[in-house]
Amino acid sequence: MDEAVKERIKFTPLRGKVLTAEEAAKLVVDGMHIGTCGTPTAGCPLSFFESLVKRGEQGESFKVDLWSCAPLSPGIDGKLVEVGLLNRRLAHQANPILAKAANKGEVHYADMGAAWVPLEVRKGSLGKLDLAVIEAVEITEGGGIVPTINVGDEATFLRYADNVIIEINMNMPQELSGVHDIYIPESPPGRKPIPLTSVSDRIGTPYIEVAPEKIKGIIISYKEVNAPGRAPIDETSRAIARNVVSFFEEEVQHGRLPENLLPFQTGLGALGGAILSELESSRFENLEVHSALLDDGVLDLIDSGKIKAADGVGLFFTKEALEKLAKNVEKYKEKLILRPIDIVNSPEVIRRLGVIALNTAIEFDIYGHVNSSHLGGSRIMTGVAGSIEFSRNGYLSIFMTPSVTRKGAISAIVPMVPHVDHTEHEVNIVVTEQGLADLRGLDPRERAREIIEKCAHPDYKPLLWNYFHEAEAQGGHEPHILSKAFSFHLRLAETGTMKT
Amino acid sequence: MDEAVKERIKFTPLRGKVLTAEEAAKLVVDGMHIGTCGTPTAGCPLSFFESLVKRGEQGESFKVDLWSCAPLSPGIDGKLVEVGLLNRRLAHQANPILAKAANKGEVHYADMGAAWVPLEVRKGSLGKLDLAVIEAVEITEGGGIVPTINVGDEATFLRYADNVIIEINMNMPQELSGVHDIYIPESPPGRKPIPLTSVSDRIGTPYIEVAPEKIKGIIISYKEVNAPGRAPIDETSRAIARNVVSFFEEEVQHGRLPENLLPFQTGLGALGGAILSELESSRFENLEVHSALLDDGVLDLIDSGKIKAADGVGLFFTKEALEKLAKNVEKYKEKLILRPIDIVNSPEVIRRLGVIALNTAIEFDIYGHVNSSHLGGSRIMTGVAGSIEFSRNGYLSIFMTPSVTRKGAISAIVPMVPHVDHTEHEVNIVVTEQGLADLRGLDPRERAREIIEKCAHPDYKPLLWNYFHEAEAQGGHEPHILSKAFSFHLRLAETGTMKT
Repeated sequence: MDEAVKERIKFTPLRGKVLTAEEAAKLVVDGMHIGTCGTPTAGCPLSFFESLVKRGEQGESFKVDLWSCAPLSPGIDGKLVEVGLLNRRLAHQANPILAKAANKGEVHYADMGAAWVPLEVRKGSLGKLDLAVIEAVEITEGGGIVPTINVGDEATFLRYADNVIIEINMNMPQELSGVHDIYIPESPPGRKPIPLTSVSDRIGTPYIEVAPEKIKGIIISYKEVNAPGRAPIDETSRAIARNVVSFFEEEVQHGRLPENLLPFQTGLGALGGAILSELESSRFENLEVHSALLDDGVLDLIDSGKIKAADGVGLFFTKEALEKLAKNVEKYKEKLILRPIDIVNSPEVIRRLGVIALNTAIEFDIYGHVNSSHLGGSRIMTGVAGSIEFSRNGYLSIFMTPSVTRKGAISAIVPMVPHVDHTEHEVNIVVTEQGLADLRGLDPRERAREIIEKCAHPDYKPLLWNYFHEAEAQGGHEPHILSKAFSFHLRLAETGTMKT
Repeated sequence: MDEAVKERIKFTPLRGKVLTAEEAAKLVVDGMHIGTCGTPTAGCPLSFFESLVKRGEQGESFKVDLWSCAPLSPGIDGKLVEVGLLNRRLAHQANPILAKAANKGEVHYADMGAAWVPLEVRKGSLGKLDLAVIEAVEITEGGGIVPTINVGDEATFLRYADNVIIEINMNMPQELSGVHDIYIPESPPGRKPIPLTSVSDRIGTPYIEVAPEKIKGIIISYKEVNAPGRAPIDETSRAIARNVVSFFEEEVQHGRLPENLLPFQTGLGALGGAILSELESSRFENLEVHSALLDDGVLDLIDSGKIKAADGVGLFFTKEALEKLAKNVEKYKEKLILRPIDIVNSPEVIRRLGVIALNTAIEFDIYGHVNSSHLGGSRIMTGVAGSIEFSRNGYLSIFMTPSVTRKGAISAIVPMVPHVDHTEHEVNIVVTEQGLADLRGLDPRERAREIIEKCAHPDYKPLLWNYFHEAEAQGGHEPHILSKAFSFHLRLAETGTMKT
């Protein structure tokens, strides 16, 4: 055995379990429930899944259920669909091929909140987990599994799966060992508090424990990370972020937020980048991030001292960022921690830390209900991921979206959303590039006036006012005219625009 | 001063602050934010509010905002509306006069989750709390306030209010002292875990601390409790409860619930009573209750040994039950605890205890979204109360409703609910007298089949299948036809029945 591989499999009894990816993929049989994880671009056991896809390409006919709190990169979710191997997919996904199959009813997709899969696995409510497949940087001398750039569901999967396959990715820096903090909540009754009280706390082990006899194979792979880096920030995203940061400034001024704010959660992409960029040039210091995925921007802000600590479930890093982390891991380990998704997204932890939740919406309605998953109410785009726990338990729950999309043909503010992921009960603030509506303590009619006035695009304001005034005249606490509630969406379907 | 009153105001510096209810009510001025609480039949500072209402009846013209996690008994919410004193009402209510005014837009009503008011008060996001008015059984030697049959928001209100009025109800047994357990969560950052790990834990003080100089008056009153006692259980409620308890039996059999279940939350009324009654005659022992309001049934089951511990925010007791509690308080104190609503309803506590959440729905749709507040999408009936936190954080989230109401004219299962309080993401189980649909891990189309098949009334099954099949043919992950999604509700409005 290659010395470099030995260095990665420090627990000698497991060295005899090395298999090729093809051999490992052959362990999969029809009807299996497979648990795995990854970030949108890397961190999933790619060689294993490529070999599994190959079995499908070669005409084998079987179906598996796949449980993962995150999209499987790159495009594995879609490839499994194309070769006909996917029966059921649980939790977050963002793959257009999978979405299309789910929309056609060809694949069973359950859009569970990202953190719910490990929760339900521990409860036993999803049936048996037959196989867990996990990417790792090393197996420690004591047999602990050190994940690569992602923890996700992996800790619970390794504890509860009947069988385990580990894919050691030799191109993932071994120095990542020490970045992870693994803690699995107990089951009730008699469950103790999760002892996390600060973003920088370490409460568990730097590896995942697994019974060695469950490991049925170890794959050695050489896969690269390939995140795109910080997204270019368009003017609309910048304006939205500016509205958010101005709001933070006011809250601090009124004594409703501490001087260094509270740990914030944000997504990736242009909007997440714009938020980081605006905070970078703001007067705020010693910030903390408590988010699902951490990108290069977070590392940059740790470098500049703007961010004092960040934790998350995975890294959405470019190769350069990952190398920087690996080279200076002793320094970064104090400030950057990867945890299981059911710790990061735990209602207990989010509420205790007082996380400011910044999520994107597809659309929201005049009363503050948010659709973040289904276009036109029926067609799924992406899953809701962690927005569920963050919006319901955050200190502040903020939803952001450009006021219009598709060159103005679609308004993101509508009379009624045709699919509700987040209700008026947990949506505090909605923001577009037009402005910010603070909904706290307002009744529905007040919310409608605030949202239309502050957030709607001028092109749509008259249409929204018309609907609201007509509904208000008919009466009701949250006035709606059911025959016209979806008029914007029906017009779009008929004419290609929500405009009259 | 009467010796009996002295016995209730043990902290001597406050004995000089006794006022009549009329004098106390005069401290209210236009624009005040007033915090108070109660149970639906008692526990609110009634003399104070009766005197306040009298000011309105005598033609005085001013408006106040009222914050309370619970309906103000008996009918105080409605009386304040009738005399024109109520500007804004925050959080849970169940008063038809208030609901009517909210539906007309005459009173600002924000249906915040019951536990959110103390949360937002601590954050300062609702503005200043000018006055807290609280019913108490006594003021301890150290100046601590011992509430009567309700804790609700009171602890946070007494800490944050500028001014405080205490109404000592001489007809509430002083023996209640010791039943309460007061703990106010800290504010972030640096917040510690709430140390509660079991329903029977005591983590705080048996009284509420308050700065004595804030107390502007003490009213002495003589009000009786007047809860109606256990509701008669109709056949439909019994059938629903039977379906729920059968489900528990299956879950235990499959090892997904412990032998003595987990602490359960349930409401009042016929359905709550039916659940208790079915559990009473079941094989389950050593049960625990973790609920907002506890009624006589809970006390009976503690007596019979079926329930080993119960905690809640208030008692919905008859006079007889209250006397029984008072007489044997040393015995009951071990098994019955009243806490602040933001502890009972805390996401952290609910999740940790693994609470089984049993809530009622007005209606749910074929995909499992629940409406529990707005009739026809516009007209509010009652607030969502604590169902928000329980359904989002419970171990199991169960929603119950009869399959039809108004002699079959209204189906509780509809194509799309016109108001969403609880989304598909947190609704695990829906139950009617027809059957129980277990939605865990299912995709939307599977959920629709399960719900229509198991829960819908036979009269409505064909209509629901028609809608679903037509929508499914059009495609989509969660197939809807927006032009027909509210056809049931529109038909009801036009013809008086959802039937064709």
